[in-house]
Amino acid sequence: MSPISRRRLLGWTGAGAALAGVGAATGFAVGSTGGGTDAPASPGVVPFRGDHQAGIITPAQDRLHFVALDVTADDRDRLRALLQKWTTAAERMTAGAEAAPGGAVNLNPQAPPSDTGEALGLPASSLTLTFGVGASLFEKDGVDRFGLAAQRPPGLAELPSFTGDQIDPALSGGDLCIQACSDDPQVAVHAVRNLVRMGFGTTSVRWSQLGFGRTSSTSTEQATPRNLFGFKDGTRNLKAEDSAALEQQLWVQPGDGPAWLEGGSYLVSRRIRMHIEIWDRTSLAEQEVIIGRTKGEGAPLGAAAEFDPIDFGATGPDGQPRIPADAHIRLASAESLGGTKILRRGYNFVDGSDGQGHLDAGLFFLAFMRDPQAQFVPMQRALAKSDVMMEYIEHTSSAVFACPAGLGEGDYWGRSLLEP
Amino acid sequence: MSPISRRRLLGWTGAGAALAGVGAATGFAVGSTGGGTDAPASPGVVPFRGDHQAGIITPAQDRLHFVALDVTADDRDRLRALLQKWTTAAERMTAGAEAAPGGAVNLNPQAPPSDTGEALGLPASSLTLTFGVGASLFEKDGVDRFGLAAQRPPGLAELPSFTGDQIDPALSGGDLCIQACSDDPQVAVHAVRNLVRMGFGTTSVRWSQLGFGRTSSTSTEQATPRNLFGFKDGTRNLKAEDSAALEQQLWVQPGDGPAWLEGGSYLVSRRIRMHIEIWDRTSLAEQEVIIGRTKGEGAPLGAAAEFDPIDFGATGPDGQPRIPADAHIRLASAESLGGTKILRRGYNFVDGSDGQGHLDAGLFFLAFMRDPQAQFVPMQRALAKSDVMMEYIEHTSSAVFACPAGLGEGDYWGRSLLEP
Ligand code: HEM
Ligand code: HEM
Repeated sequence: MSPISRRRLLGWTGAGAALAGVGAATGFAVGSTGGGTDAPASPGVVPFRGDHQAGIITPAQDRLHFVALDVTADDRDRLRALLQKWTTAAERMTAGAEAAPGGAVNLNPQAPPSDTGEALGLPASSLTLTFGVGASLFEKDGVDRFGLAAQRPPGLAELPSFTGDQIDPALSGGDLCIQACSDDPQVAVHAVRNLVRMGFGTTSVRWSQLGFGRTSSTSTEQATPRNLFGFKDGTRNLKAEDSAALEQQLWVQPGDGPAWLEGGSYLVSRRIRMHIEIWDRTSLAEQEVIIGRTKGEGAPLGAAAEFDPIDFGATGPDGQPRIPADAHIRLASAESLGGTKILRRGYNFVDGSDGQGHLDAGLFFLAFMRDPQAQFVPMQRALAKSDVMMEYIEHTSSAVFACPAGLGEGDYWGRSLLEP
Repeated sequence: MSPISRRRLLGWTGAGAALAGVGAATGFAVGSTGGGTDAPASPGVVPFRGDHQAGIITPAQDRLHFVALDVTADDRDRLRALLQKWTTAAERMTAGAEAAPGGAVNLNPQAPPSDTGEALGLPASSLTLTFGVGASLFEKDGVDRFGLAAQRPPGLAELPSFTGDQIDPALSGGDLCIQACSDDPQVAVHAVRNLVRMGFGTTSVRWSQLGFGRTSSTSTEQATPRNLFGFKDGTRNLKAEDSAALEQQLWVQPGDGPAWLEGGSYLVSRRIRMHIEIWDRTSLAEQEVIIGRTKGEGAPLGAAAEFDPIDFGATGPDGQPRIPADAHIRLASAESLGGTKILRRGYNFVDGSDGQGHLDAGLFFLAFMRDPQAQFVPMQRALAKSDVMMEYIEHTSSAVFACPAGLGEGDYWGRSLLEP
């Protein structure tokens, strides 16, 4: 498709009758691969607006670009203006359009292009952009920078440090985060890069992480992917289809804290370096005992198929529990944790080499939940204390963000917080 | 597909009559998504053996994992044994099989799995594995480590340092390289990781680079992709279809140097950091003048369509050349360089952030050619000296490898070098 026809798609012929869904309200066509204004909404478009933000229970896309930013400006109006601008751009890009009208080949050649161009011609690719705010936005070094201190939700309390933590503060935390997930990494990178660009003078990049393969399924419709230990990951994840559990475990409810976060969720990120060389020298039997599942099929030990129920009480011929007391899936299970579950949505990463002859690889753990203190903290505490897997991993970065509810028409990222 | 059926596919039922192509010789079935031994060769399988190594003129796949390794062992037999083992594993993996028979769920649970497992169930995904050797394999600190010094080909002479170079020696060079290209990054990472694992005790990782999006087309059948400056890249690349030019510019010919490299090619890698924030503040007109092409369509300035021929002599109404004297495409063109061309096969990368508030993004330049000294050096010298684009980029890593010809039946990586 030539850029001319794409530009035409982006408004020159106006919003036709078929601009269904997300595109309709803002007057641009949906999906960059469509042939014209009468094309139906592209199947690769995830709606941007709704009760909850996209990118949480959206079936996990294959690729990730995550960025944490600090706000360098100190006035609230400038922050609000950026959030409004970001929202417009984010909605356009998730629909397959360029970041701003005019795009990479804008009409005034003397001005910088309003879009950086590397996604020109690529479809929407199920792009979702999910926005969150960190504790430091509410208060940093004792200063209430934006008059928001009273709005800080309880879940943004600092995480304790866990046994074995090797957290690098420079690669942790952040005032804001944007999670870009897509089936095409170029589309995810393009979106983050254009938002970062718009933030110039107001925000700066604190840290950023690419993920090349999803490690968890988040919908019963998805096949379970594998992490870099070679095991299926996501089998007993909280799934999009389990609406009752989502209300109980995932979405912030009225009364949980300040009203602006109702219908939202907390995001915990942990960059977990895996010592894959050591893992790779461990026997298959030992690997399976550490996880509590078989490697090939992903069945609970003692059962036959991946989705067979786990019988934590079952014992083997030796009288020992089939699933050992310190198996990962026992320690992390709702059964051991008073019913607690989380929605895992992590990605595999390789960040070059570590300078010691090894690949710097691991799992960028992302999980959404209603209350990090009540859900993530006891779970990670149990794992840090007893999980044999800890010998093979190292948590190197940590962050918690509060992700507001979804956007209604005309809404922008953070509106409920900035204009309560 | 359950792992049981995959294991069956990998030899338990023997090599059936339909094991066409690459699988036949070694007795395993081709393509991990096939339903059984009578399935035809999977369309996502690139043949591993042939006159030339795969991954050079193979239409550029979407994702890359590149690794440079140093040999830590000091005897030639051990090196040869590893290269033989690597070849068997590489051939299996490019066919969609696991790294070794038995695979991730091997029969002896007391042994470590012979495959790490994260690609179980994924198809071959056009995986190619391309092997090369660096100058340091022939001689390091004046020592002829493997009795190969006399076999060092002329093209492995060191590259000069170019104006503006910011090369990090720790992320440059290497005794060996493996380029893994695939349409699925998990498949590329899995292949590199399993080869690295087999090398334990003989090799160690020197540096490694992931690329998330190809920046160059290498076949007339491919649409031209875009780099992170937002421009189409690969329009006038050397293409797989131009066999005469390939012999002249790409494949090492008899008489060029030692016989073991005939039919092979040299690979030059340059990690090029792009200062995308500065680029993004440059006007569209200026960007187009720097490249010498339009951003949207990719047409040469003064022409209309991407593949229109370039008229370097054309002048505008002001009497100035349409394509400026210091435009990238003029400086790098065969017309300016006495007919020299190279095969570009680079990838976009984002390696997190730079600690200064920016994304650490750029182009991992990979190019194949018959003679780096005669082709890459004058080209890069011209660019380093005059290319306005140099203000927006920085070369941070550099390497040259000699990639032998393709493998015949029974051959292994480096055989022509080690057993001439
Ligand atoms: C590199 C680190 C980790 C690896 C390789 C890993 C791997 C796995 C695997 C293979 C499973 C079984 C399949 C499934 O039901 O999803 C699993 C389950 C689970 N993991 Fe992890 N995990 C890691 C870190 C964590 C962390 C940090 C947490 C939370 C603090 C966590 C929480 C869970 C939970 C809640 C389950 C489901 C347990 C159940 O109810 O059956 N994991 N993990
Ligand atoms: C970040 C760095 C670079 C960027 C963004 C870049 C971008 C481009 C673009 C947009 C084109 C025009 C489309 C095409 O014909 O492929 C091009 C052409 C070309 N580039 Fe680069 N390039 C970079 C570095 C290099 C380097 C280091 C070399 C070699 C030393 C090189 C060699 C060439 C050649 C040979 C052509 C074709 C010129 C012609 O004959 O028309 N480029 N490049």
